[in-house]
Amino acid sequence: MRSKEKVKVPENLLSFLKEKDTFFIATHINPDGDAFGSALALSIALETLGKHTVVYDRDSIPAFYRFLPGHERIINSISNLIPNLFRDQISNLILLDCNTPERAGIEGTKFRYSAVIDHHETEKDFGDIKWVEPDAAATGLMLFYLIKALGIPITKEIAINLYCAIAIDTGTFRYNNTTAEVLQVSAELIEAGANPAYISHNLYETWSRGRFALLIAALNTLKIRDDVAIIFVTQEMYQKTGAEPADTENFPNFPRMMKDIKVTALFRELDNNYWKVSLRSKGDMNVAKIAALFDGGGHKNAAGYRMKADLKTATETLLQAIHRKATA
Amino acid sequence: MRSKEKVKVPENLLSFLKEKDTFFIATHINPDGDAFGSALALSIALETLGKHTVVYDRDSIPAFYRFLPGHERIINSISNLIPNLFRDQISNLILLDCNTPERAGIEGTKFRYSAVIDHHETEKDFGDIKWVEPDAAATGLMLFYLIKALGIPITKEIAINLYCAIAIDTGTFRYNNTTAEVLQVSAELIEAGANPAYISHNLYETWSRGRFALLIAALNTLKIRDDVAIIFVTQEMYQKTGAEPADTENFPNFPRMMKDIKVTALFRELDNNYWKVSLRSKGDMNVAKIAALFDGGGHKNAAGYRMKADLKTATETLLQAIHRKATA
Repeated sequence: MRSKEKVKVPENLLSFLKEKDTFFIATHINPDGDAFGSALALSIALETLGKHTVVYDRDSIPAFYRFLPGHERIINSISNLIPNLFRDQISNLILLDCNTPERAGIEGTKFRYSAVIDHHETEKDFGDIKWVEPDAAATGLMLFYLIKALGIPITKEIAINLYCAIAIDTGTFRYNNTTAEVLQVSAELIEAGANPAYISHNLYETWSRGRFALLIAALNTLKIRDDVAIIFVTQEMYQKTGAEPADTENFPNFPRMMKDIKVTALFRELDNNYWKVSLRSKGDMNVAKIAALFDGGGHKNAAGYRMKADLKTATETLLQAIHRKATA
Repeated sequence: MRSKEKVKVPENLLSFLKEKDTFFIATHINPDGDAFGSALALSIALETLGKHTVVYDRDSIPAFYRFLPGHERIINSISNLIPNLFRDQISNLILLDCNTPERAGIEGTKFRYSAVIDHHETEKDFGDIKWVEPDAAATGLMLFYLIKALGIPITKEIAINLYCAIAIDTGTFRYNNTTAEVLQVSAELIEAGANPAYISHNLYETWSRGRFALLIAALNTLKIRDDVAIIFVTQEMYQKTGAEPADTENFPNFPRMMKDIKVTALFRELDNNYWKVSLRSKGDMNVAKIAALFDGGGHKNAAGYRMKADLKTATETLLQAIHRKATA
């Protein structure tokens, strides 16, 4: 094996996965390629061991992720499930790419045991087993080591899912979490059957006309203050274009193209005067610390939070927070 | 060494580089990252062996490539050089990323020995030593093996140049020449000191605000007819944004993101009712044949022409031509 195993998979997680037979795999709301790719790869891998898995995401899978092998196994409703299939078996939760039930939209559901596998920095205490690697570029990268540690071969289906997970979280190898290890693991995934051009085409060149129209509408809202770029998307813009929240996935990357922009913020309207804010930064600017000021979280260069306020107040509050951070 | 050495460096090329002391390294006109990166990496490498090199490109290096270590050694004029430094020593030519003197703009200059290192398929017969690998993703990938075969350590300066070369020619690992080998070699270049985020930032995130404003203005002109997307840029838009014609370089790539768009046309106003039209297509649609109808030219997936007409007439004429071609 060429890739350096910098990541050590915890023994108690391996025992949990080997000993139990049924798993409820859940990932975060507003899922991205790392969430879907990791969840599907783990589901496919565990089922080769004869385990039974359910993959749950509260939100449905966007059309452009439907090339992922196994995507049809994702369910978006938990209520029908409980009285039937799982009955009292809904005991073994695996939370992927997030670390609280709230983040997965499953707060209130009871689980007997729970494991967390995530690369987001966290102070939270949920999970009987916690495996959090803030230095890992993607949860998909952790899954690669986990699946190998379980002795499961990386099939083509698993490889495509993990490659997508890593590609999305590294900006297809452009962000500063792109390490030699990331490329070595991705090379192994190609050897296992992942096709980089096919995956990139699906991720980047299969936009609907509505999604492209929404991008143009969002770019038309561009405001620049010093080295901060702000764009927003309203409910009305979704309606006009026929696009949906998941379609905004990489919108913050566009203003990033400007040389002197250090932070990009995308404000998405969740409800009247209620905003989901996605922050992206370049270099040393730590937006996780900005997001934390508003009870949000994330990574140094990609973080988010929610805020109840009118748009003007919400943007001014953010700009002031960034300004204070920058001059602190 | 983890990367598979699929590429075999010819012995006569290694002997040539070891035995001679002075080299004239030339690459193609309209140079790109593979041309610059390969030429600079080879120059730096050979000089660590005590060789003397000159790096020549007829065209000057664009600002966004000036992060490449050693870029200041590139000369754009050959005439001053011959009577002085090289005198009658201008004997050992290395042509990189191209395979004819014409492609490098040095036809007419005499060389005693010449070597060609290229990954473009060719029927041409130039070069005492020819090393052409059409299956190599980039000339920079060939240089990686060459430099190692010479026993020269891959320094940080060499690694940055080779990484840039490979990144540009693979669309930063998105085109279908992206193989496991490409990622393995790139991982080694990262270990040798290339910083992927720094390189990607320089290549893709150094737009001026005016250029970005022009992009938004151009996208606002988007018209879609069937599978053809049309955008335009007027003189007034240049003036408003402070951008210039060269800034529109990759604008037609943006509508390409839409799944069902097969042709994108960018109309740039050269003068009143006088347009330069750039066509880009996906897959089998041959836009060179469309451009030829208007006395233009180009390649199958990238072509252009000029037309004197008002914008409405110009676009309708194009749409009719595409429609006729598609239904022919």
